[in-house]
Amino acid sequence: MTFELTKDYLDHIQTAIEAGDDALLRAEMEELFPADISGILYELEPEPAHYLLSLLDKSVGAEILANLDPTDRTNLLKRFTSAELAPFINQMDSDDAVDLLNQQPIQVREEVIGLLEDREQARFILDLLHYEDGVAGSLMQKELIKINVNLTVNACIEEIRQQAEAVENVYAVYVVDDVGKLLGLVSLKKIVLARKTAKIADIYDDDVVFVETYRPVAEVAEVMQRYDLDAIPVVNVQQRLLGRITIDDVVDVITNQAEEDIQVISGLSGEVEEDDSVWQRSKVQLPWLVAGAVGSLMAATVINGFQNELGKIAALAAFIPIIGSTGGNVGIQTSSLILQSLTDTSGLSTTLGRRLLRTLLVAIINGLVVGIIAGIYTFIIGEPRLFFVVATSLLAVVLLASFMGTITPLLLNRIGINPAVASGPFITTANDLIGIGVYFLIAQWLLTEV
Amino acid sequence: MTFELTKDYLDHIQTAIEAGDDALLRAEMEELFPADISGILYELEPEPAHYLLSLLDKSVGAEILANLDPTDRTNLLKRFTSAELAPFINQMDSDDAVDLLNQQPIQVREEVIGLLEDREQARFILDLLHYEDGVAGSLMQKELIKINVNLTVNACIEEIRQQAEAVENVYAVYVVDDVGKLLGLVSLKKIVLARKTAKIADIYDDDVVFVETYRPVAEVAEVMQRYDLDAIPVVNVQQRLLGRITIDDVVDVITNQAEEDIQVISGLSGEVEEDDSVWQRSKVQLPWLVAGAVGSLMAATVINGFQNELGKIAALAAFIPIIGSTGGNVGIQTSSLILQSLTDTSGLSTTLGRRLLRTLLVAIINGLVVGIIAGIYTFIIGEPRLFFVVATSLLAVVLLASFMGTITPLLLNRIGINPAVASGPFITTANDLIGIGVYFLIAQWLLTEV
Repeated sequence: MTFELTKDYLDHIQTAIEAGDDALLRAEMEELFPADISGILYELEPEPAHYLLSLLDKSVGAEILANLDPTDRTNLLKRFTSAELAPFINQMDSDDAVDLLNQQPIQVREEVIGLLEDREQARFILDLLHYEDGVAGSLMQKELIKINVNLTVNACIEEIRQQAEAVENVYAVYVVDDVGKLLGLVSLKKIVLARKTAKIADIYDDDVVFVETYRPVAEVAEVMQRYDLDAIPVVNVQQRLLGRITIDDVVDVITNQAEEDIQVISGLSGEVEEDDSVWQRSKVQLPWLVAGAVGSLMAATVINGFQNELGKIAALAAFIPIIGSTGGNVGIQTSSLILQSLTDTSGLSTTLGRRLLRTLLVAIINGLVVGIIAGIYTFIIGEPRLFFVVATSLLAVVLLASFMGTITPLLLNRIGINPAVASGPFITTANDLIGIGVYFLIAQWLLTEV
Repeated sequence: MTFELTKDYLDHIQTAIEAGDDALLRAEMEELFPADISGILYELEPEPAHYLLSLLDKSVGAEILANLDPTDRTNLLKRFTSAELAPFINQMDSDDAVDLLNQQPIQVREEVIGLLEDREQARFILDLLHYEDGVAGSLMQKELIKINVNLTVNACIEEIRQQAEAVENVYAVYVVDDVGKLLGLVSLKKIVLARKTAKIADIYDDDVVFVETYRPVAEVAEVMQRYDLDAIPVVNVQQRLLGRITIDDVVDVITNQAEEDIQVISGLSGEVEEDDSVWQRSKVQLPWLVAGAVGSLMAATVINGFQNELGKIAALAAFIPIIGSTGGNVGIQTSSLILQSLTDTSGLSTTLGRRLLRTLLVAIINGLVVGIIAGIYTFIIGEPRLFFVVATSLLAVVLLASFMGTITPLLLNRIGINPAVASGPFITTANDLIGIGVYFLIAQWLLTEV
């Protein structure tokens, strides 16, 4: 169905690169889609990758560079002079060009823009450079077909013809008034079917969903998904049409967000891949491991403070794992549910009070079940006097962890931190620590009472 | 920018429903996009929701029903007779119609198919019903524009005109030979720009990426994302064109997969939302809490077996949390990295040996750092004789958890279970248990040696 990279094929290409067999390489690459050539570039060292890329048709090379993994791309581009890079940037969609240039040193960025043959492209890029990461403007491309509402379908087709090379996927033609304000759109299908002399004013659809440049990217993704859009026009505060965001970029946003969430939940403190260097991986894993260790050592201090109780009843130590893990598990479950509800913006939003009440009820059921199971276990190991200590502690731990799991992601979200952090090792360790404190306090209290 | 549902507006609609003010309701709903009406339906009880839906234009209602959350939809559809449901199904894309009907009792399904006015739609649905969930066939819709390679652009436009209502987003026209084998495609943009008398054979693009009906959905998503496709044609083993999959369905697949992964990692044993009932939530949270509790009680049994050692050195208990949490954290980090590498299929795949070697090296660094930190802590609490016990145990625990974190997701993936399970509470508890066993064994060994 699709191309699959094999070791043999890779060897074949590598040999051709070493031999400088440009004709063979060009012929082989012609057979492949840009995305497949990317797969080969990932496996090559920067120098041969540079060589291979420089042989390609500029528009193919532009598509490859636009979609390469940013870290690999930065390494690869170190081999390129600004004069070598410019022809690729010339052929790129403006949004991809800006992404790439933003990862280059300022000097390279300015040199490349200066060297662009296509001056419209240079203007597009300068327009887009000032949007900060994470807002609609940063995902937008300037390439689109727009047409004045007073023109005809024929004029529209002429416009498409002129822009045909620049605008890869048309989807729809945007309709604007004399000052460039967005009025609506005409689907490409409608243009195919319309009489050529028909007025745009008579056939366009004024039910158009758009976003402003300053909207957060997550909101753009949510809106495009909710309304099943292939592209969404981007406007300024006067509702003038500035660009559009296409679905492929949004798919990337959704995928990256999901990867980032899982990374954060897994306690990885930065972007990393399994095949990165050992140091790189360790650097990303250690911060949370150390933070977790410090948290656990605080729990150790708590436990040490109750040596007296432990000396009298050694079996108390046996319940440390269940207290810790139950607190952690409940915290993750609860915050994950809140996390999910935060991304769902259809319907009315839930009040904090209702959330907490429901969470409390769930926690009582769960806490009782787990508490009773652990309570039964105290009989099994012949320490029935621990029944109430263990059962009560677990109920308390589940209640506390549920509360923390509800409040923390909401709070993080409010102050603009990725709420997925609340499912990560930090909160888990905090729950662990609090749980153990509660357990020993209850133990001390109930066992001296008796 | 977009509609936002307020309490006031909802009250207004509810009052109109109670008063049976159909004219007002129709006028209000006309102003809204289908996705926004869905938001209102979520907030209504089934009976008024049924009432509101029955007032809508059938094609609008079809789009709403196609995109409603499946659980809410099933509840709502219980109010519908088959005769009421059929007109909506008539207007739906065939893939959405099949999804909906698959969730209905067989009797309803057959009645509705029998009642469909559009007999082509009925045939489409019967064609699609037999694909099992999770393969390309189950995401495919029959609606598409296809044209014989020997015809002209003019004939193609005529075909689009005839299919205009059925095929919402055209994207491209698929080109087939006399027996229906897929040859390539022509983009809609090319059709707009081509001379009407041009032969399809002269203008079509034979570089077409397609999938077979039996391909897993995750693979389809990966391919569409890799090649930035808006739609992908689906063929049978003879490469005959059967249908297509559009990007909006794939976006849903990607989002659902990410949600499912996070759910599994968070230890939720089924689909649930924060605003589901208390019982529903508890039912989904309890299985893993109980499993975790049982695992921790096994750890308790291990600890209890070392009462002798604990009796002599009470401070041993203090390190139970750090052993457990470090094992858990390392396991999650490692399996999350493997998980991520499994979804990335560009480039060559890594061999198990290389993976394990790299993981081993990372684990040694991480294990030494965490081990030494905890080791220093033994001096702080005045138990220096525990230095080697704690440091060695932590190194061992990190090594073991890294190994488990690498092997488990690969193994789960091989046997067709969602490898995200490996980051969930099950593996965490297993690591916890093994870690504590290792810790006490090392303690027993090193402390009797001294």
